[in-house]
Amino acid sequence: MQYSESLSSPFRAVNPYNGIELEGDFFSANPGQVDAAVKSADDAFKIYRNINKDAKAAFIRAIANEIAALGEVLIQRAAEECGLPAARLHGERGRTIAQLNMFADQVEEGSWVEAIIDSAMPDRQPAARPDLRRMLVPVGPVVVFGASNFPLAFSVAGGDTASALAAGCPVIVKAHSAHPGTSALVAAAIVNAAKITGMPEGVFSLLYDGNSNLTGQLLVKHPLVKAVAFTGSFRGGMALSKLASERNIPIPVFAEMGSINPVILLPEALDERAEQVANECVSSITLGAGQFCTNPGLLVAVKSPSLENFKAALIKAVERSVSSTMLNSGIFENYCSLSENVLSLQRARVLSRSENINRDGRNQAVAAIAEISASDFLSNPEFKEEIFGPWSLLVVAEDIQQMQEVLEIAGGQLTVSIMTGANGAGKYTSLLNQASEIAGRVLMNGMPTGVEVCHAMQHGGPFPATTDSRFTSVGTTAIKRFARPVCWQNWEPGLLPDELKNENPLKIWRLIDKQWTKD
Amino acid sequence: MQYSESLSSPFRAVNPYNGIELEGDFFSANPGQVDAAVKSADDAFKIYRNINKDAKAAFIRAIANEIAALGEVLIQRAAEECGLPAARLHGERGRTIAQLNMFADQVEEGSWVEAIIDSAMPDRQPAARPDLRRMLVPVGPVVVFGASNFPLAFSVAGGDTASALAAGCPVIVKAHSAHPGTSALVAAAIVNAAKITGMPEGVFSLLYDGNSNLTGQLLVKHPLVKAVAFTGSFRGGMALSKLASERNIPIPVFAEMGSINPVILLPEALDERAEQVANECVSSITLGAGQFCTNPGLLVAVKSPSLENFKAALIKAVERSVSSTMLNSGIFENYCSLSENVLSLQRARVLSRSENINRDGRNQAVAAIAEISASDFLSNPEFKEEIFGPWSLLVVAEDIQQMQEVLEIAGGQLTVSIMTGANGAGKYTSLLNQASEIAGRVLMNGMPTGVEVCHAMQHGGPFPATTDSRFTSVGTTAIKRFARPVCWQNWEPGLLPDELKNENPLKIWRLIDKQWTKD
Repeated sequence: MQYSESLSSPFRAVNPYNGIELEGDFFSANPGQVDAAVKSADDAFKIYRNINKDAKAAFIRAIANEIAALGEVLIQRAAEECGLPAARLHGERGRTIAQLNMFADQVEEGSWVEAIIDSAMPDRQPAARPDLRRMLVPVGPVVVFGASNFPLAFSVAGGDTASALAAGCPVIVKAHSAHPGTSALVAAAIVNAAKITGMPEGVFSLLYDGNSNLTGQLLVKHPLVKAVAFTGSFRGGMALSKLASERNIPIPVFAEMGSINPVILLPEALDERAEQVANECVSSITLGAGQFCTNPGLLVAVKSPSLENFKAALIKAVERSVSSTMLNSGIFENYCSLSENVLSLQRARVLSRSENINRDGRNQAVAAIAEISASDFLSNPEFKEEIFGPWSLLVVAEDIQQMQEVLEIAGGQLTVSIMTGANGAGKYTSLLNQASEIAGRVLMNGMPTGVEVCHAMQHGGPFPATTDSRFTSVGTTAIKRFARPVCWQNWEPGLLPDELKNENPLKIWRLIDKQWTKD
Repeated sequence: MQYSESLSSPFRAVNPYNGIELEGDFFSANPGQVDAAVKSADDAFKIYRNINKDAKAAFIRAIANEIAALGEVLIQRAAEECGLPAARLHGERGRTIAQLNMFADQVEEGSWVEAIIDSAMPDRQPAARPDLRRMLVPVGPVVVFGASNFPLAFSVAGGDTASALAAGCPVIVKAHSAHPGTSALVAAAIVNAAKITGMPEGVFSLLYDGNSNLTGQLLVKHPLVKAVAFTGSFRGGMALSKLASERNIPIPVFAEMGSINPVILLPEALDERAEQVANECVSSITLGAGQFCTNPGLLVAVKSPSLENFKAALIKAVERSVSSTMLNSGIFENYCSLSENVLSLQRARVLSRSENINRDGRNQAVAAIAEISASDFLSNPEFKEEIFGPWSLLVVAEDIQQMQEVLEIAGGQLTVSIMTGANGAGKYTSLLNQASEIAGRVLMNGMPTGVEVCHAMQHGGPFPATTDSRFTSVGTTAIKRFARPVCWQNWEPGLLPDELKNENPLKIWRLIDKQWTKD
């Protein structure tokens, strides 16, 4: 639980809408502070891992309460730092709090440890079977990189932090440099919660890193760090992943690196409701200035008269849309240059670009949709790169077969959405199978933005969407990233973890001798 | 389902006991054959993944039956190729068959897919919740490397193959070059089983690689391969892991790379039963010529008069032991040179080495135990390297604190065993916690060899014991290595996988709206 200060010059946050520097000096952590934070987390781990589940849940719930107690100060600071509207931030705060409470519930319920007991069979021939008991245990200190696009829900006390704390792992957060003030407010809430609930010093720390990546690199390389969670760019995720794999003892990096989230527009959908689908697409593309990892960056349709209606509606909807402030000037400049770059490739042409620019504000992104033929898309892999912002590329295929070729080239994705007609998608089995092979989540007749935080969510997908498609960063199963199984054989009964004791004092679900039971 | 033949010169197996070349020519696969096998596996995947669970289970059960039907021919060939006694091979065949049937049971039961359903809440405020359903799906073609030390249970139809097929993944096995004839017999059994049960061509293939690693490398680099399972040396596992991480689309390598499996001899254990413990240790060390990944390569004790009794008993037990044939000359030569090398370091001294060498046989390994002080062990990390064979190193600590330092330096392990006195280990909490932090399995009053194949087993542990401590290569949860979650959102009910349909046609356990149920 520490804030970094150093002799280096301070940095400040900048309001992306008006370019004005905000109050508050922040200091990049120096190597000594990084080391101290990790060592403190490792010390805390020895205590925190053995704290009972109700106390852990109380801590996580207290974080939610402390964040709520920050009130409008938090919303206002986040709005100033990130250029996001207050309504969106209220929603995001609600999600952050709900997600902390969800993990607290999960910890309290306790069955997530996957307890399995195989009883001894002393008389078995040819050899006795020993008593074997297995459950998940926390891995140790976890480093979380705050994401720029969710200053609350995927930053200091976001899903990664909540799930790591729930698993029993101390957390060191590397604050995103674009919202240091928001980070400080939330960190203070966590520190308060830890104090109120008697958690060990070091169970949570926040470190800053102004304009370099040094703090993050030192954290990932620190021998006592056991896992890393990151949401951001492909380049950033891969750099951390490489660093982690080159350690003497490699550790996992759960990097969610983005996706172009193909939306498959089946002919029947366009025949039946071209305009409605177009409006849904544009709403999703422009939501939050398109700064979501699930932004639908690829629309795939088959050539048809209905497609022309869809395009006409798409054009209108884009034209109606107004510019919005991007998170920071770096993201805005990237959006401009990447989208310009695609259009300069000459195989894509602008289908529609909004001209409703707020001239009073800086970093104003306008929605744009380009069009390309499937054959040009297939032969030019650069078109499948993600463009972070209110952007999408409409790929026009000759037939369903070519649509599937487009999906195949698009590769690993967080989501694939299928827009169907009223009679369903029964005749497109091959396409549907393909969607579930390349994505972590497949949707029908809905847009991929608006990721539900629940048990059944899978937010993750085959590379390059994430570094590890076996895990999710959203939903209760996100906790599995920070745990590993241990088996106790013939252990002294009184020294077993409570989860594995015969009398099941925690009343959790367990697989005992092949039967699931709460007894 | 193919056997490689090529224009390259054939290789043959050699009986390690008498050095005689065995009948049967085998050919390394050429790059075209590797490509064909993987493409065939990928084609098979599209069919096999959608085959219903009972048919998959029938296939896996048929493999077990076909292996049993091979009868003594299999045992004899394996004995000739591996120098292992028939009794051991009968036991290993039993384990192989039991493990196939266990995975067939698991597939038939069906709940391993971790189905989770969160029902739609159309009236929820501020936004409706969509219908979300999640389960594990197979990843695709898996490459399995046959292990030398388990020619049946961790080779062609061993635990890796069984769990991958159970998950719904086609398998391409790279045969271990030391037992090609055994591999061919078992592969034929699998191919027969596939034919009998109507499985798609390509669901299983076997490829050879005589004296190079080329076949294995080509397999790991092939774009259609989705995961790799390997049991073998640290160097081998790391080389494959590096190759896999350098692919355009990295894939996981589940490498079980060995361990020195510390056995902690608590003072009370030696006070109460020094001789018994010594005999148990030597039995475990010499079992199967010490060629188990769970061989206890490190004994850790505190200086005491009882320790002297233990050492005396250890010496006697080692002297009584007789040499046994190692798996092949490469392993034997490694054993000789590594054990000699440790002794030449001058800080370790031979405590006991058997002189009962079978002079009629080749590749005869004798048991040896060396002794070193904890302080010398701590300052010379080379002593923690695994020596594959009937070898162990007794580390003598000054006190329990130093014992824990030895454990810390020893690092990630498959197992840690604790030998306690009759009053238990209640006063050694810190040591017990440490054991479960560094190992995948912790045992009391038992030896780590003899890995039980069951639900609660965890055979895996922190690096360098394995590349991924979150998974196991033994027991039912091994299936999780070859699957990843997918979430279906608002999917057309009739097109959902059976596991996720409302009526639960497969009668599996599911988490529906936070409640575990079979309804």
